[in-house]
Amino acid sequence: MIKPIRICMIGAGRVGKNHSRAITRHIAGGRIVALVDPMAQVREETALEFGIENQFDTLEIALEKADFDAVIITTPTPTHLTLAALAAENKKHVFLEKPMALNLQECDAINKVIDENAVILQLGFMRRFDPEFVAAAQRIETGEIGQPMMIKSNTHGPGLPPPWARDLHTSNGMLAEVNSHDWDTTRWFMGSNYERVYTEVANFKGAVNNVNVPNFYDNALVNIKFESGGLGLISGVCPCGYGYDARVEIVGDKGIMQIGELQGQSVVVCTNRDQGLITPIFRTWPERFEWAYINELEHFVTCIQNETPPRVGGIEGRWAVAGVLAGTKSFLEQRPVYLKEIIGE
Amino acid sequence: MIKPIRICMIGAGRVGKNHSRAITRHIAGGRIVALVDPMAQVREETALEFGIENQFDTLEIALEKADFDAVIITTPTPTHLTLAALAAENKKHVFLEKPMALNLQECDAINKVIDENAVILQLGFMRRFDPEFVAAAQRIETGEIGQPMMIKSNTHGPGLPPPWARDLHTSNGMLAEVNSHDWDTTRWFMGSNYERVYTEVANFKGAVNNVNVPNFYDNALVNIKFESGGLGLISGVCPCGYGYDARVEIVGDKGIMQIGELQGQSVVVCTNRDQGLITPIFRTWPERFEWAYINELEHFVTCIQNETPPRVGGIEGRWAVAGVLAGTKSFLEQRPVYLKEIIGE
Amino acid sequence: MIKPIRICMIGAGRVGKNHSRAITRHIAGGRIVALVDPMAQVREETALEFGIENQFDTLEIALEKADFDAVIITTPTPTHLTLAALAAENKKHVFLEKPMALNLQECDAINKVIDENAVILQLGFMRRFDPEFVAAAQRIETGEIGQPMMIKSNTHGPGLPPPWARDLHTSNGMLAEVNSHDWDTTRWFMGSNYERVYTEVANFKGAVNNVNVPNFYDNALVNIKFESGGLGLISGVCPCGYGYDARVEIVGDKGIMQIGELQGQSVVVCTNRDQGLITPIFRTWPERFEWAYINELEHFVTCIQNETPPRVGGIEGRWAVAGVLAGTKSFLEQRPVYLKEIIGE
Amino acid sequence: MIKPIRICMIGAGRVGKNHSRAITRHIAGGRIVALVDPMAQVREETALEFGIENQFDTLEIALEKADFDAVIITTPTPTHLTLAALAAENKKHVFLEKPMALNLQECDAINKVIDENAVILQLGFMRRFDPEFVAAAQRIETGEIGQPMMIKSNTHGPGLPPPWARDLHTSNGMLAEVNSHDWDTTRWFMGSNYERVYTEVANFKGAVNNVNVPNFYDNALVNIKFESGGLGLISGVCPCGYGYDARVEIVGDKGIMQIGELQGQSVVVCTNRDQGLITPIFRTWPERFEWAYINELEHFVTCIQNETPPRVGGIEGRWAVAGVLAGTKSFLEQRPVYLKEIIGE
Repeated sequence: MIKPIRICMIGAGRVGKNHSRAITRHIAGGRIVALVDPMAQVREETALEFGIENQFDTLEIALEKADFDAVIITTPTPTHLTLAALAAENKKHVFLEKPMALNLQECDAINKVIDENAVILQLGFMRRFDPEFVAAAQRIETGEIGQPMMIKSNTHGPGLPPPWARDLHTSNGMLAEVNSHDWDTTRWFMGSNYERVYTEVANFKGAVNNVNVPNFYDNALVNIKFESGGLGLISGVCPCGYGYDARVEIVGDKGIMQIGELQGQSVVVCTNRDQGLITPIFRTWPERFEWAYINELEHFVTCIQNETPPRVGGIEGRWAVAGVLAGTKSFLEQRPVYLKEIIGE
Repeated sequence: MIKPIRICMIGAGRVGKNHSRAITRHIAGGRIVALVDPMAQVREETALEFGIENQFDTLEIALEKADFDAVIITTPTPTHLTLAALAAENKKHVFLEKPMALNLQECDAINKVIDENAVILQLGFMRRFDPEFVAAAQRIETGEIGQPMMIKSNTHGPGLPPPWARDLHTSNGMLAEVNSHDWDTTRWFMGSNYERVYTEVANFKGAVNNVNVPNFYDNALVNIKFESGGLGLISGVCPCGYGYDARVEIVGDKGIMQIGELQGQSVVVCTNRDQGLITPIFRTWPERFEWAYINELEHFVTCIQNETPPRVGGIEGRWAVAGVLAGTKSFLEQRPVYLKEIIGE
Repeated sequence: MIKPIRICMIGAGRVGKNHSRAITRHIAGGRIVALVDPMAQVREETALEFGIENQFDTLEIALEKADFDAVIITTPTPTHLTLAALAAENKKHVFLEKPMALNLQECDAINKVIDENAVILQLGFMRRFDPEFVAAAQRIETGEIGQPMMIKSNTHGPGLPPPWARDLHTSNGMLAEVNSHDWDTTRWFMGSNYERVYTEVANFKGAVNNVNVPNFYDNALVNIKFESGGLGLISGVCPCGYGYDARVEIVGDKGIMQIGELQGQSVVVCTNRDQGLITPIFRTWPERFEWAYINELEHFVTCIQNETPPRVGGIEGRWAVAGVLAGTKSFLEQRPVYLKEIIGE
Repeated sequence: MIKPIRICMIGAGRVGKNHSRAITRHIAGGRIVALVDPMAQVREETALEFGIENQFDTLEIALEKADFDAVIITTPTPTHLTLAALAAENKKHVFLEKPMALNLQECDAINKVIDENAVILQLGFMRRFDPEFVAAAQRIETGEIGQPMMIKSNTHGPGLPPPWARDLHTSNGMLAEVNSHDWDTTRWFMGSNYERVYTEVANFKGAVNNVNVPNFYDNALVNIKFESGGLGLISGVCPCGYGYDARVEIVGDKGIMQIGELQGQSVVVCTNRDQGLITPIFRTWPERFEWAYINELEHFVTCIQNETPPRVGGIEGRWAVAGVLAGTKSFLEQRPVYLKEIIGE
């Protein structure tokens, strides 16, 4: 039996818990041997829930006191570069949550330190591991719907993001924190890079939610022109309240493909003909992408065991950040923004 | 322009209103010129709503005083033979609601008087005119799913039938008054006659609804063996409360076909992720089979104009009655009943 | 019985046939008494199919020789002003297909002649009469999903539009000829006017279809900012090949609503588990909006009978044209275009 | 960290492989330490695929040479009693695939030896662990649809069962080998025992598949009367060819509930409007019930660790066998069969 990969989980919050659960219960090839979080209470809770023996305040201490092969970084975006660099320099493989970083300089710095230390970097674009998204990508690849002409991808999340994620001074806002996946998905399925983007945003619930930061928005529509000539649409609403809603629709020159649906469980009930049929909706992202999370983490473990590069890494992470920057600049300046303005020629 | 067929509507109740609406609003080739009903109030209401000029207490008077080509009989089953015979003897074409009659003797008497007077008899099996049922039948005919091996047909109706329809002394109960269509549909799609049937019934809501007649039931499951060797299932629930529910599922030796669904309108709403998605259900039969009713009445009018036999008539009506009688005998005697016991060898 | 409204159908092509069928078969209150089309062959075909007795080359001749109450104009957009004006000046009520006209001047001229002659003008935005769209509008009105924040409306049509509709010199292209309904629908459901629009277009099938006109496009995505602050998205693909696809999705501050679906008939078949389930798609617009066409024409007839204004007229028609003009200017100039640039302050 | 439960897998065929995969990849709390199968080739294949180190021809040898806490029995029904007894007598916990045994005497013998040795017995009714079935059961429990009046459960499997499972001399045929789950599910959801059953069967594909055993059938419809007065329907088709199809529908006195659907993945494609929409169907049972298998095995492991009784055991297994025996007797004797004829008063 192959020795399980020893993992240090960094961040004991919602994503850290989700990944800890996936690994502890469902990934025989990995084991969480350390948990890092400066917040003692949530850290102890998480450690207890998933039977993680070692807990540390910082990655530095963990590196000193515990023995592990890899880290999973689930902390806020601004911490990504520092943590990823420290892990890589200590020859630990890195699983990094999206968005990769706040800007392209940070992305480049992460990619550099990963390369120099010859460790693995996998980005947390779990939709690339969702069975439906994977099947769809393969079918597009075989030409089933022809060349993609138009792709629409939406992520609408139920709850208000944390304060740091609402403010353009401490994050890149909803386009980054909620719609990162859509940037990656549209580029993946279109098989082409963004050429220019145009964004409209709206703020409908800021006041109600006591969000007073300038440039806050809770609705966004991004119109994308791809280098291939294709069109793209990213739609973001957060908080949307009604559920977790992630769907994709692609029109190719030979047909249409729809991926995902609102329905979360195939249990339909009707008790009142004036009300109608009731079907569960996906309530949260862990529910919608349960297999995607298990699969991406299993892929990470397997890539380490086999010393193979992961299916999604720093290049994809960087492109998503570039899209976010262009999309944000667009609504701030109320004009279409070319990617070459962001990434250079 | 062809002269519209002049129709005398017999019965001003729910079915009479439904057919009057279909003809008045949507069938240019037909015109209701007389309305017969002994209940003055409902008759006047219906006449007013659909602009019907002549009203009569009885068909006898209508025949004497008004000029028309055809009758539509929507009155309770026990009245069918008398009314159909009177109409036919006066050379009026007959559209007769289901079930055809209370027993095979009455069916035979109706068929005889129709034949002798060379008028048209169409039975109100409107599902044979529903666009989905028609498309399904054509596709089965072409062999798309191979030879039908098993067919399930259900009709669950929202409300309690009228008193006469609950009592086995004045009707053949739910199997006849609610499930007549299923008898016809299973036989139509299977392309074979029933060989034997076995019925289980249950009475869950009789007490709550103050129904005290003996042998009342509000749930029924009929297991059918067809002459072809195929299996059939008829399911009835009435009152079911939750909506009007009519669906069919056929397994052939090459595949499966499903016809119909619970969803009544493609409008999906979610406002609460704990509740889930809400979609309208079909509330009533006029809503579910709106086009079927228009199409069957248009067919009747066209058959009269073209002097062609209707697609569904006395033979189909008689078989459905035979099925009902066998199905009823089965649960009364708690044993499978062969159709030959009902119709002779 | 009320005397049927006498109608002169102008245009014997696809739309003319569709409306003739709806009226002849399903609208008892209207009668087509004349058909106008300069193309003798298609005119005779249509007249024969629907039993229309009088045929004329031009509306002028029809006005001279036939007696009617109203016209239905189904001819190409450039002809709308002339025909509508001629009809109105002769005191005929006007049902006018979308798009209303090529520019705002023509819209204004039509509205003026209608007003001056005190006749009825109804625009062919049949989606306002589709049972699902109507139910959705009512439910939005009651506040079920709260204030609309984002609305997406798509129309993808199967076949290549006729030559005049592909060329920006003779029409306003796909945004007008295919997506007129989406302009009206988004504004209707949002309950607000467009403030600015940004459009991206693509041309994927022009070469294959031998379309060489400049600025031809077969894919379009329009990003709309409404005066209410809400966001809108119009998506057009034509020819898309795969079917007729018209769906709407609205996110309000209290929930989401979806209207319409790809599935055209609830008949599901599976004969091969490697292929999967097969369900009919809507193939064409007459199929998808069958009831909408019947209802809008019945509404027109009823408005004439009752001398009441139709639910959708010249104001709605003019706004849709304004949107199209802004949307077209946007992609030609690659910038967001404010409606005030088009309609003045 | 809790020490993983050591498991001996008995049977290296389809079910053995499925359970080995679930445990090896997704159940951190269990480990397969031995594999028993007399067929060397399939055993070595399975052992290699899942990294199982110890292989044995028989359970006897495994008990002698390997150390484990529990067995999983996936071999044909006739072997169940012998293997379960041997395991229990050696104080091994037992996970036993359905159907439990060939007759009630064997069921009783298994239950006795389990009790005497105070080990755990879990039956492989994985539907009791499917997230949708579990949610449905809880909602029925809370009274959401009221008292169940009618329940329909179907299992249609794609391929021909193995020879021993087709013959009533070596198995109880399709009702046992395919529909065991439906017997358990209907009883579970109805919350009542069967009172009497009536079965019709048909043989449509026997000849084509060269199945010549007497009493072979590939279609079955079982009509059930429950002690509660409720009605039940079990439908079996095998081989059905078109996919793996397991759905349940329950009508309660307050509403309807549907569990499951044909659609296996939410990826919808249309490339041809004459063909229509294509959606994947569930192809196989491991695909449909992937989480159910993981959950039931995790439950087994947890029950052993916590020394708690499993949610489904020998009582449920015995009732399903009783239902099968009554259902089989019914079609052989062409009459309704009371359960008391099978299990005594």
